[in-house]
Amino acid sequence: MADSISLNLSKLFAAAAGANGLAEDDLGAEAAAAAFEAFELRRTTGEVGFADLGEREDLAAGCRETAALVRAEASDFLHLGIGGSALGPRAILRALSHPQRNLLPPAQRDGPRIFFVENVDPESLAAIRDVIDPSKTWINVVSKSGGTVETIGQWLVVRQWIEEAVGREKARERTILTTDPEKGLLRRMAREEGMRTLEVPPNVGGRFSALTPVGLLSAAVAGIDPSEILKGARSMTARCASGRVGDNPALHLAASLHALDVRKGRRTHVLMAYADALADTAEWYCQLWAESLGKRYESEGEQVFSGPTPVKAVGAVDQHSQLQLYLEGPQDKVIVFLGVRRLREELEVPSGDGLPPEIAYLGGHGIGEILDVERRATEEALLRNGRPSATILLEELTPRAIGALYQFWELTTAYAGELYGVNAYDQPAVELGKRIAQRVLSRSGGQGT
Amino acid sequence: MADSISLNLSKLFAAAAGANGLAEDDLGAEAAAAAFEAFELRRTTGEVGFADLGEREDLAAGCRETAALVRAEASDFLHLGIGGSALGPRAILRALSHPQRNLLPPAQRDGPRIFFVENVDPESLAAIRDVIDPSKTWINVVSKSGGTVETIGQWLVVRQWIEEAVGREKARERTILTTDPEKGLLRRMAREEGMRTLEVPPNVGGRFSALTPVGLLSAAVAGIDPSEILKGARSMTARCASGRVGDNPALHLAASLHALDVRKGRRTHVLMAYADALADTAEWYCQLWAESLGKRYESEGEQVFSGPTPVKAVGAVDQHSQLQLYLEGPQDKVIVFLGVRRLREELEVPSGDGLPPEIAYLGGHGIGEILDVERRATEEALLRNGRPSATILLEELTPRAIGALYQFWELTTAYAGELYGVNAYDQPAVELGKRIAQRVLSRSGGQGT
Repeated sequence: MADSISLNLSKLFAAAAGANGLAEDDLGAEAAAAAFEAFELRRTTGEVGFADLGEREDLAAGCRETAALVRAEASDFLHLGIGGSALGPRAILRALSHPQRNLLPPAQRDGPRIFFVENVDPESLAAIRDVIDPSKTWINVVSKSGGTVETIGQWLVVRQWIEEAVGREKARERTILTTDPEKGLLRRMAREEGMRTLEVPPNVGGRFSALTPVGLLSAAVAGIDPSEILKGARSMTARCASGRVGDNPALHLAASLHALDVRKGRRTHVLMAYADALADTAEWYCQLWAESLGKRYESEGEQVFSGPTPVKAVGAVDQHSQLQLYLEGPQDKVIVFLGVRRLREELEVPSGDGLPPEIAYLGGHGIGEILDVERRATEEALLRNGRPSATILLEELTPRAIGALYQFWELTTAYAGELYGVNAYDQPAVELGKRIAQRVLSRSGGQGT
Repeated sequence: MADSISLNLSKLFAAAAGANGLAEDDLGAEAAAAAFEAFELRRTTGEVGFADLGEREDLAAGCRETAALVRAEASDFLHLGIGGSALGPRAILRALSHPQRNLLPPAQRDGPRIFFVENVDPESLAAIRDVIDPSKTWINVVSKSGGTVETIGQWLVVRQWIEEAVGREKARERTILTTDPEKGLLRRMAREEGMRTLEVPPNVGGRFSALTPVGLLSAAVAGIDPSEILKGARSMTARCASGRVGDNPALHLAASLHALDVRKGRRTHVLMAYADALADTAEWYCQLWAESLGKRYESEGEQVFSGPTPVKAVGAVDQHSQLQLYLEGPQDKVIVFLGVRRLREELEVPSGDGLPPEIAYLGGHGIGEILDVERRATEEALLRNGRPSATILLEELTPRAIGALYQFWELTTAYAGELYGVNAYDQPAVELGKRIAQRVLSRSGGQGT
């Protein structure tokens, strides 16, 4: 894999994991090659566009320009979005910026404070109102379809605050709409009111949109170079150009996880990040995996009710929460570890004569070193309990590594979709709940009426 | 159930959910009664103490006193702990305090800023150093056993910062150790150095300790009355005093979830909180459920490898992420909704002639109203897809309701342990990884040596 990311699948296979592991031919070289070809067809015909986002330097440039305007004026930047319009942006920012970013004094912070307005939760929204300065606030309203009810409802509330503080015209100038270039309500409103916009390419679905302006603008506002992220994505796409699992790491992981589900009954796929910076990335993966693969029908129309259950875990924290279940519970899980070789900080545990003997061995070790040792010990403990696992290791948490990692998981998801034989790009079931909710709200007519 | 909490299990049963639902006699009245009696024996003999914490007004008083010292002096309060020493405290604070608490100016904030130091992640720890004022920082080091390596390692680092700022004696005065009253390293150090302590009752295990000083001190530091939390716990224990499922809501839920696992193959138990304030509570539940029930051996010694997989979800957010899988994926899940009837804030979506027709129906509705309608619509959509669900509804997010909710889930877990026939109070498997990690660290001798 890319020199900045390495993938170790050996503990998924029988040679290491014993009877619970995969045999080499469980992967199905032909099925994998066919999955690769099927996805290549979608990619090269332009049906599915995420894998080529690394080439869209124009999108990065647009984000940099817009971010410069924001950074020059704003004390606070609100990113309004939900689902695929929130998970990627939040996860990228969390991976690449200061963990207490919003608490840093302005002089030590690169760019304005950034808030994600996701849930239609009035307590969360009111709390943001309590801490921002609406006279210096910019907002980015993000919806691929342009019609996401939660996001638009929140926007109408937030817009009122800002208009009250700076007037209608300035509020309009400080609003960015990130949406489809042609279709949808946000695009129409942008045209009618002349608002600033950023484009989500039409052939990139919401949950695959982290590496479009959906995820890149907030990064750029925080001083992270979006071009570096795209470079990482480009290099990963280049490394996944083969239909042989041995030469395509994303195909290798997809084929392995699929085989562990259908051949070994391991349907719960845990991504366990050993770095707080990657906790939100594990959550982003959960959407990608669940919504892409959880489907009632195969592409051929047969009813299958298939789809692995993704789970987010964080090490070492979840060693004290979920690990007992992973080690002794049902043989229905695969753990994919996500580690970082060199974190951006290290803190040494003070040594000295004063330490009680039980913990004297900690003295002189780094906190990050302890984390790394615990990850390896957990991998070993799983193996000794006959539980297969895989490991993705990032050399460092750089924009390039993050771009590569996100492209890697998106490709893995695309190949997995072909292997499961489902359409990885729709989400037909969630419409029902939306229709029910809309009917109830339309009927009850609003508190204000 | 308590007037402040209601439980609706009707959608788990065949009358509503059809063939995928439970028959009434699937619950097994005799097995449930036996589970109740088995737990009562543990409780009344004092083997397991969590269910009687509501009576421990002395613990609440101790927390209030200690919190008063902290509140008088501190600008920042660090709670050091991991697993059961972090999840409950963080979840209680999140449920009952301002969502942007640390960003509020001191005059608007009740008590000092509060930070949870959980993971052995040097980036997270260094980031806290970047924003706190060590000359006005108090710390609470929390470990039931008194020997948690991650927490003690972090304490040694943090202690150095504070000693550098205020000297050894003042640093000692501003340190609280929350641990077993007799045993363990922290207790010994407290005795030797004369440090302030709070007690975790010996018969309350880490993951059941949210309603001890483990969870109550940080709440008290934020101005939340711990006695109110305990009152809620007491009322819930009183309501769960029967071995008949119809008269004991925790037993009813435990028997239902157990039956859905063993009779219907629904082994993934999702807690989906429809309030951001309860997101961390869902994470707390994940530890309780996984670590208590994920076991290799039955109490009788038979190898079973049992245990449901808990999953945290947040509505409406996860309607845009996990719901597609819940609606169309394998029939292996149960969704337990956790809603709130009256949130502490409401914000109205502005209505008016300017709204585009597609979203005009939103005008005049409350953001919280939309959230509530979406929860009900999601319940309905699951039902129409033949997916059983249950609903826990809190009237309001008060300390009393939270105490009742936590006691409710702990009792549910205890009864589930008896129904699964496992020891819900140990975690034997996680020792292996700890030993491996300790051996590696002892051998490598520390960077400083």
